[in-house]
Amino acid sequence: MSTNGSELPRAIRETDVGEGTTIAPFSVIDDCEFGRDCQVWRFVNCYGATVGDEVMIGSFVEIQSDVVVGDRTRIQSHAFVPSLSEIGDDVFVSHGAKFVNDVYPPSGDPDRWEPTVVHDGAAIGTNATLLPVEIGENALVGAGAVVTDDVPPDAIVAGNPAEIVGYRD
Amino acid sequence: MSTNGSELPRAIRETDVGEGTTIAPFSVIDDCEFGRDCQVWRFVNCYGATVGDEVMIGSFVEIQSDVVVGDRTRIQSHAFVPSLSEIGDDVFVSHGAKFVNDVYPPSGDPDRWEPTVVHDGAAIGTNATLLPVEIGENALVGAGAVVTDDVPPDAIVAGNPAEIVGYRD
Amino acid sequence: MSTNGSELPRAIRETDVGEGTTIAPFSVIDDCEFGRDCQVWRFVNCYGATVGDEVMIGSFVEIQSDVVVGDRTRIQSHAFVPSLSEIGDDVFVSHGAKFVNDVYPPSGDPDRWEPTVVHDGAAIGTNATLLPVEIGENALVGAGAVVTDDVPPDAIVAGNPAEIVGYRD
Repeated sequence: MSTNGSELPRAIRETDVGEGTTIAPFSVIDDCEFGRDCQVWRFVNCYGATVGDEVMIGSFVEIQSDVVVGDRTRIQSHAFVPSLSEIGDDVFVSHGAKFVNDVYPPSGDPDRWEPTVVHDGAAIGTNATLLPVEIGENALVGAGAVVTDDVPPDAIVAGNPAEIVGYRD
Repeated sequence: MSTNGSELPRAIRETDVGEGTTIAPFSVIDDCEFGRDCQVWRFVNCYGATVGDEVMIGSFVEIQSDVVVGDRTRIQSHAFVPSLSEIGDDVFVSHGAKFVNDVYPPSGDPDRWEPTVVHDGAAIGTNATLLPVEIGENALVGAGAVVTDDVPPDAIVAGNPAEIVGYRD
Repeated sequence: MSTNGSELPRAIRETDVGEGTTIAPFSVIDDCEFGRDCQVWRFVNCYGATVGDEVMIGSFVEIQSDVVVGDRTRIQSHAFVPSLSEIGDDVFVSHGAKFVNDVYPPSGDPDRWEPTVVHDGAAIGTNATLLPVEIGENALVGAGAVVTDDVPPDAIVAGNPAEIVGYRD
């Protein structure tokens, strides 16, 4: 079956969707809250998240339960945001970036999970990996960085493990 | 078309599925064998694999042909497991971890492919990359590690290239 | 709904498809040009790209607009190819490799984006990350490498940041 897209399937269940928010076909959204004017692209798997206004979520993204995403934040393709993560306003999570909430896997025990917190205006580079850390306001995590410690506001970090290589103006 | 999910498409072909095993919509499973009580999530592409009991396979996972997965193993979202891989029991393959079977790509010649073997109880961290190596029992590969050599049992490795940084108790 | 696959949905819109080219179900192709004898697998999101002959595109791949892909190139699962990228003939882009076109994200301003160019015969390893660089003919980017500078023809690079570790014969 090949279509022009108007009849492609998707699922939106137990979810509040604000005015102007669009959710593409081939996505599954369960038990979420979306503000207004968000764009959710194809092949998104999102359950139990609370999402602000004007947020963009790219293809092949998974966002787990108990995640909070602020306004105007962009979560790009192939990103993974696990339970307990808090993402502020105007944050950029680039393609393939993945957060970790379980430092000594496998732990099926949520009591051992720890949150990652990304403050307003921070940017997380492509394919970056974040252990449970705090990323300060306007900080920049370089592409491919593996972040094992908290990052101060405005800092630029890069490498594996990530180290501070400069500061944003 | 927006639905409550009960009518979303999926494909299960030439596949044996044990009692209690569930396969979510938007997944394509070809020519596989699953034991009992497995959970296969959405957007999974799996062909020619032999999977044990109580295995979890997350979203956006691809598992190729001639892969064997043991019991109670969890393969998290965005992981890639190529042909020839052997994964033991109680293994944790975290989000975005990817195995390599072709060290000098591009080789369309399967005779040049080499296997990755992950022994029982090992954990492979988020976004880790495994060249064709052997990961010992209960070893822990850190998040973002690039593993170019075999890892002994109980060892903890991290970095790019990965080095031993400790041992599990 | 479980099917044998013959009725699974996909969308192909405003797209020219050459003779012998196949596009699998659960893929969405918008406004592209494909040569002959290409294979596009499941869960592919591709819009505005120009693709040569005998190209393979794996599952969970996103290719953005204004990308050019040469003949006989293979773009493996979970890869991400952003706008402005140019990929030559006989290139191998391995699983999870991701290119970057925006060095100081978040920039919604395409005028600030820069291209990545991959020349004929080059191979980009699994989970590699490419900043906007030029990859020379027949170069090999190792698995997990983070490439921040141009790579000369025939060079082999590895690490984070990537450095030259040898040359291909």
